[in-house]
Amino acid sequence: MLDVCLLGTSGMMPLPGRYLTSLMTRFNGSSLLIDCGEGTQVTIRRRGWSMHDIDTICFTHYHGDHIGGLPGLLLSMANADRKESVKLYGPPGLKKIVNSLRVIAPGLPYELEFHEFEKDVEHFEANGYEITAFKVNHNVTCYGYTVDISRAGKFIKEKADENRVPMKAWNLLQKGENVLMDGITYTPDMVLGPPRKGLKVTYCTDTRPTDSLRENAKGADIFICEGMYGDPEKQADANSKKHMMMQEACEIARDAEVKELWLTHYSPSLVHPEQYSKELKKIFPETICTKDRRTVDLMFEED
Amino acid sequence: MLDVCLLGTSGMMPLPGRYLTSLMTRFNGSSLLIDCGEGTQVTIRRRGWSMHDIDTICFTHYHGDHIGGLPGLLLSMANADRKESVKLYGPPGLKKIVNSLRVIAPGLPYELEFHEFEKDVEHFEANGYEITAFKVNHNVTCYGYTVDISRAGKFIKEKADENRVPMKAWNLLQKGENVLMDGITYTPDMVLGPPRKGLKVTYCTDTRPTDSLRENAKGADIFICEGMYGDPEKQADANSKKHMMMQEACEIARDAEVKELWLTHYSPSLVHPEQYSKELKKIFPETICTKDRRTVDLMFEED
Repeated sequence: MLDVCLLGTSGMMPLPGRYLTSLMTRFNGSSLLIDCGEGTQVTIRRRGWSMHDIDTICFTHYHGDHIGGLPGLLLSMANADRKESVKLYGPPGLKKIVNSLRVIAPGLPYELEFHEFEKDVEHFEANGYEITAFKVNHNVTCYGYTVDISRAGKFIKEKADENRVPMKAWNLLQKGENVLMDGITYTPDMVLGPPRKGLKVTYCTDTRPTDSLRENAKGADIFICEGMYGDPEKQADANSKKHMMMQEACEIARDAEVKELWLTHYSPSLVHPEQYSKELKKIFPETICTKDRRTVDLMFEED
Repeated sequence: MLDVCLLGTSGMMPLPGRYLTSLMTRFNGSSLLIDCGEGTQVTIRRRGWSMHDIDTICFTHYHGDHIGGLPGLLLSMANADRKESVKLYGPPGLKKIVNSLRVIAPGLPYELEFHEFEKDVEHFEANGYEITAFKVNHNVTCYGYTVDISRAGKFIKEKADENRVPMKAWNLLQKGENVLMDGITYTPDMVLGPPRKGLKVTYCTDTRPTDSLRENAKGADIFICEGMYGDPEKQADANSKKHMMMQEACEIARDAEVKELWLTHYSPSLVHPEQYSKELKKIFPETICTKDRRTVDLMFEED
């Protein structure tokens, strides 16, 4: 249904066996990428997923470890015969920075569409993904992302009959479309029950804890969050460099009542993130110190 | 003496287990890098060599697969506490392209010195490396490189005596320095025999066969050369895209009488380069279909 792959878990710089933090999802034939540091195209290949179908690329911010792999990815997408335009989203400066990096990827056989955020919270739709970008607190403008896959209500025959909806219109209405028939407009709510629980993934790196993060991660199926350091002695570094401790990420996961927390964006100094696992699970039991390319296929709940 | 590591063997794009083609050497505490595609910093780490000591970076040309890893490398060198300036060499456009890529690596704690080539052949010295850049034949301006480590002649006591060189001056003269003593200038040739055989490595990717390559690779200890394709059916591709067949590289190695040929810059379509090994050795017996991070420590010949 919604394939989720955390392509890498490194922060600051790529390491042998640890690619830079980046999220890729697949849904309904369309792929979404959030962040694209150096080597992202290689870990996509390792996963065995196609670059051709990346329709949307979102950036949290423009530090090198989150965008340095973009020109190479764009070139490889061209080599994979991509023709359709690609939508790029991110904080102000997106177009300038991407075009500057494109000095080594000048001629592409597809268009790039730039969408720069203006507000602290932005909603947009991209090929079935409902995306919310929300500002967090780093030393440059930085956004977190929530990806929602909504699910319509169940079809209720009694409701359709009650609203005198002709049977011919049922199919399209179930797909969420309005139907005009014999001068009457029928709407999906005339045949459907209340919306059912969809799927939700929240992704955030490079920030101190914020209310925006707590609110936007609320009830997420997967909350992917930076855990730059585990050693409490690194708290001062986390504060000054505006990064997050693993323990702080766990507190947010607990407060936001998410289903699972995937920690990522480890400092190169954090050689064995899992050494903190036991302690972290005391704060939030469903904490996972992820490794590169952790993948889950999220499914809608059974009715 | 001269540590030589071919950091990667891929052409066009980085692949899982196959980094982009790049050469790193270490000599007398100073490291030299030729080309820096996406992921170069990671394969350097895999090799276990330090980024801190890279004093010189040379570029063959500015296609993404040869320079896309530069901003990440520069950032990691800054993280490795590099303070000394770094010399960059390459075809015209170097400064513009590097500065454009530096949109994501703006503040570095060391200077970059840019040296753009003007002539078809350029000689320069860099921390004991004697480097020759020579133009080759690609679809953009592209240079190959020869790296020489020269070796002075043997000390000959009889010659020193004959030239009445005071014993106090011998040591500095052996190190290649002139010595002024009692109003007389003594020169190294007064105590040394003819120069002895040094070490020579020639590196070239992205070109059709050229005379410049044949001449500059002459007698090299290691000749590192692109072998983009092995299948004879790819000859038309090699011609039109201005790349080289493995077989053509072998012919150049044979004509230039090099000691060893290291093939690299394989097309992603060339999954098993070594499948051509037997056939290639018929053209030039000392042909090696290299894998990433092939490393040799070249030593001066015994006297």
